This record gives sequence, C-alpha cells and structure tokens, in this order.
Amino acid sequence: MRIAVDAMGGDHAPDEIVKGVLEARKCLDKEDELVLIGVKEKIEPHLPSKWRFPSGLSVVDAPEIIGMDEAPVEALRKKKKSSIALMAKMAASGEFDTIISAGNTGACVAACQLRMRNLEGVNRPGIAVTLPTFGGPVTVCDVGANVACKPINLYQYAVMSSVYARRMLGIENPRVALMGIGAEAGKGNTLVKRTRELLDADENINFIGNIEGRDIFDGTCDVAICEGFVGNVVLKLTEGLVDGLFRAIKQELLDEGLRLAMKFKPVMMRIYQKYDYHEYGGALLLGVNGNSIICHGTSKSRTIKNAIMASKKFVNMEINEAIVEYLSTSTVRPNSE
Amino acid sequence: MRIAVDAMGGDHAPDEIVKGVLEARKCLDKEDELVLIGVKEKIEPHLPSKWRFPSGLSVVDAPEIIGMDEAPVEALRKKKKSSIALMAKMAASGEFDTIISAGNTGACVAACQLRMRNLEGVNRPGIAVTLPTFGGPVTVCDVGANVACKPINLYQYAVMSSVYARRMLGIENPRVALMGIGAEAGKGNTLVKRTRELLDADENINFIGNIEGRDIFDGTCDVAICEGFVGNVVLKLTEGLVDGLFRAIKQELLDEGLRLAMKFKPVMMRIYQKYDYHEYGGALLLGVNGNSIICHGTSKSRTIKNAIMASKKFVNMEINEAIVEYLSTSTVRPNSE
Repeated sequence: MRIAVDAMGGDHAPDEIVKGVLEARKCLDKEDELVLIGVKEKIEPHLPSKWRFPSGLSVVDAPEIIGMDEAPVEALRKKKKSSIALMAKMAASGEFDTIISAGNTGACVAACQLRMRNLEGVNRPGIAVTLPTFGGPVTVCDVGANVACKPINLYQYAVMSSVYARRMLGIENPRVALMGIGAEAGKGNTLVKRTRELLDADENINFIGNIEGRDIFDGTCDVAICEGFVGNVVLKLTEGLVDGLFRAIKQELLDEGLRLAMKFKPVMMRIYQKYDYHEYGGALLLGVNGNSIICHGTSKSRTIKNAIMASKKFVNMEINEAIVEYLSTSTVRPNSE
Repeated sequence: MRIAVDAMGGDHAPDEIVKGVLEARKCLDKEDELVLIGVKEKIEPHLPSKWRFPSGLSVVDAPEIIGMDEAPVEALRKKKKSSIALMAKMAASGEFDTIISAGNTGACVAACQLRMRNLEGVNRPGIAVTLPTFGGPVTVCDVGANVACKPINLYQYAVMSSVYARRMLGIENPRVALMGIGAEAGKGNTLVKRTRELLDADENINFIGNIEGRDIFDGTCDVAICEGFVGNVVLKLTEGLVDGLFRAIKQELLDEGLRLAMKFKPVMMRIYQKYDYHEYGGALLLGVNGNSIICHGTSKSRTIKNAIMASKKFVNMEINEAIVEYLSTSTVRPNSE
C-alpha cells in the first residue's frame, strides 16, 4: 500500500510529521510504502542519514505551502504545487492508496472533492471524527465539510458512519442518533425533521432517534449525525472545554499546594489519556472516491503515526466499497430531496 | 414589584420551587410581592402554617399542568388553566411585573410570545443564558427560542445581549462575537456571513468578529451570538460534558483509593461551584414586551431564589426600555433581511 503524508501541514510541521512517519514506518509491513510530500529542503534535515534511511520511505517535492488560515479554494487555485494540491492529484491518478494531512482542513476537503470526485451514490462528502466518550467511542459526522446541508446528505452521513463504525471500530450494529434539540420527533429545525423521516424509512440503519447535546458523551449512541456547522461547533467546543477544565483543575490544585497537585497528576494524566481525541489519529473524509485522513492542526508524531495505521485499516476494511454497495440498494434515493 | 413563580415547573416541583420562593421572600423588600402559581392543593402542603406565613406571598390557583415533554403549542391550546398559560396571560395584562418558570421551555416561550408580543423593533425573541467560564461570564443568545433564524434576528440578539451584559453583569463595553467555524470572514454558512455584515455596519456594537467553539470558554468574548439550534447544542453539550468529566474524575479517584478521593473532594467542589451554571438563576427571554426568566428543569431552591433576585434586577435596570431605545436609533432596520 502506498501512503502519502503531507509534511507541511499543521502547527508542528515538518519535524513532528516526519517523526510520526518514521515511527509508523517501523510498524508497517515491508511491502507498504510511505511517501512524505512537501518542500524537500525543509523535510530533509529531519530525516535519518543515508546509511540509516529506512527502506519503503521516499520524499516527493512540493515547493509551495498552503497556510493554515488561507482561504481554501483560492489557495488551491494559486498553489498547484503545494503538498495538499499535489497529494490529492496524485492520489486521484492512483499513485497513492491513501493520503494524510494535518494542514488546512478546508483546502484538504476541497482538493479531495476536486480531484477524487464523490463515491457512486454519494451527494456530498462529510468529515467523520471519532471522539472518546464516557460511554465509549462516538463517531460524529459531519464536523465541517458541508455547511449547506440537505436531508439526503445527513441520511448518507448516517449510512457512511454506520459502515465506518462497524468496520473500523468493530461495533456490530451501531446506534445512530440525529443531533437535535429535544428527544421528540416534533422538535428541531426543518432539516432535522425531514432527515428523521428518511432515517425512519431505512430499516437497515439502527436509528435510535434524536439526541440532545448532553447525550453525546453518555453512551446513548455510537454515531451522531449533524450538519457541518453544528458538528464543527460540537468538536471545537469539546476540545476547548476539556482543555479549559483540566487547566482550571490544575490551577486549583497548585493553589492548594504543590504536594497535593503532584499526588493528583497521575490520576489526571490517566483521565486525559482516556479521553484524548488524538488517539483515533484523525478525521475521515467519508464519501470521496479515495481515502483521505485529516488530522488536527495540533497533531504531534503520535497522532500522525496513529493516522497512518488507521488509514491502512480503512483501505483494508474496504469501507468505500461497502458504502457504495449499501447506497446502491438503499430505497432512499440521492434525489429524494 | 409583583413577581410570579410557576410552582409546577421542573423536575423538583413543587417542593424545591416553594422552598426557593420562601428563601427569596426573606431577601426581597417589604413592598415586593411574590405569587406562587399552580395547583393549589399541591402547593399548600409545602407552605408554612398560617401563623408563620410570610406577608407579601400569595398563591394563585392554576388547576392544569403542562408536562416537561408536552408539545408546547398544543399543550397551551388545550391547557388554558395551566400555570404557564395563566402566568403569561396575567403578566401581559399587567398583574405581574416579571414571571419565572422551570417548566417546559417551549411552552414558556410560546406563552410569552403569544401573550406579551414583542418589544417595539424586535422581530423575534431569543433566549439568553449566562455561562460561567474560565475567562468570566459569557452570555450566549439564542439557546433555543428560534430555530429558523435570519440575519436580522442574530443582529438583534447582539443588541439585546449587549444591553443585558452591560446592565445586568456590569460589563462596560461587552465584546460581542458571532459563533462561526473559523475566524476568517469568509468561513461559515450564509446566515453567519450576512449577519457579520450587519454587525460590522453598527459602530455602537463592540463586535470582535467570529469565534470558534473552542473560544467560548477562554475569555475571548462577553457575548456569543448564534442561532437557536446551535446555541441549544452548545448549552446542553457543555452541561453534559462538565457533568461527565466530573463523574469520570470521581470514579478514577475512587478506583485509586477512598483516602485520595476524600482529599480531592473539596478542590472539586470548589471548581464545580465556580463553574456552576445555576449561579445565574436562569435564562432570559429577551425581546418580549415583558420580563420572563426560564430556569433549568433541574432547578433546586437556590436557582429559583437566584432567578427571583435576577428578575427583580432585570426590571429595575430597565433593560427592555434600553433595548427599545437602541433599536429605535439603529441604522439596521427590522426589514433589512
């Protein structure tokens, strides 16, 4: 399998990206190939010397860089030789089986949509992210690919995320919930009400109904479906709140005394690790005709390594094939809405 | 001032409601009047005996009850003698200066909209809730009154919440942020982009731009504006995540040993109290021609007492008058969108 990694993406590029790739290299099979893509002279200082250079690792030069805050579509148009643009193009022409980036999310999504096109039967791709919760992992889709969402998009996110949760996370019959603002069918906006009808109509989806914001973390569901704007707020709010709360606890403990703080450190570390969103490696762009993982901008080597291992599993599990097959027999048609 | 409290609303009605009213009674001025409204025979057992009955407290009988999960509009239509319906009607006819309920939020909003009508210049009311954060209190509006939001509604939420934050919380020049999914002006959905134009056009609002989910809790802004669906998810996700995290920490500590857990308890209690959303008493329905506070369904006596004190302050601070005055001179007109 050929796995490409964007060496220029994220706050810790290229050093942590290269480090993650080298760590993954040790865990992959001999026949797997890892490709670092980015500005060659910026990557090379972080690579081992010629004598210790691992086999199955190569570098593809991409002289341009898309910044984290650049406007995606314009950046892609201007910087055709950037790692993101080049990587998506090469993946689409079959040179890579899967691609990974911790760079500009919007640019990654746009590049993949532009080059790979959608899977057969899929109207719009969505980003799925798996969050560790107090009740087990929950896959949330979409977290920001699509902010003009229609009921058919949400229905397809439910289908794709179910396949993903089953094959990637080993959850046999994933419980799918629709993000709403009250458990009753009558509550929510028009999008939620219409989506609910589509989900109710498909007996093959284990649809458990609407959930509220508070239910995401308590083990009620395995998959939570929402439009990209809401999902993005959910994801970033969760990150900000968890980080803030841990900082507040740390400060309170330090105010109490260093000895007490030291005693609680291992307990806090354990909790932090248990609910660490870096564990799952990154978010999947579900629905494109290819395999693309988008990592958090703050990703360090461990996340990159986890993302590489996850992306290999994603391809091996033939998730895209299963999605296409499911949608081809679904009674809910792409032009339903 | 005549303050009415719905004795039948919430998970702990009527006992905790009555308890909260009795506590507030001690703190109010002599000329203030408190009115409990609900099923008389259910309220009376919780009241003091005739000899110890405080002056300035009375009961209004409302024989019907609207359940927490009833469909709001239908419930109001059927149960005209419920506490919620009667309270809003009496407030609209001038019998109460302010009303408080921990009952069915949708029914409260609908009853107030129906009976009180909107303030002059306001298109749609919004629910504003003040959350304690690591960077001070943040007022989020709307958290669920309006799930079909237009730019003019969001603009008016910014105006109303600014007035609220200034007069109620004493923040001189409240920093207003728009909930988005990226700091740049180009990001977000159509609603967010158009609202940004309206907010940019009004120099009297201290508009600091878009924020992401993670920024709500870090002291970036004093007021966060969003449409009701998003705001509701924000509010309930926050509650669920904080509760879940505290439970997880408690469990981890108990696994470690009871002695350690006991040592940590006061620290956790302090943090919990610092970020306790019950502190602010409840959410305000901004934009109706009246004063209505909606409390959380889990409210206990302390929240009810805090809500009563807050509602008195709200009336005294003439927040509605200030909103009407602001909107009458605003260059952004109600028919802008």
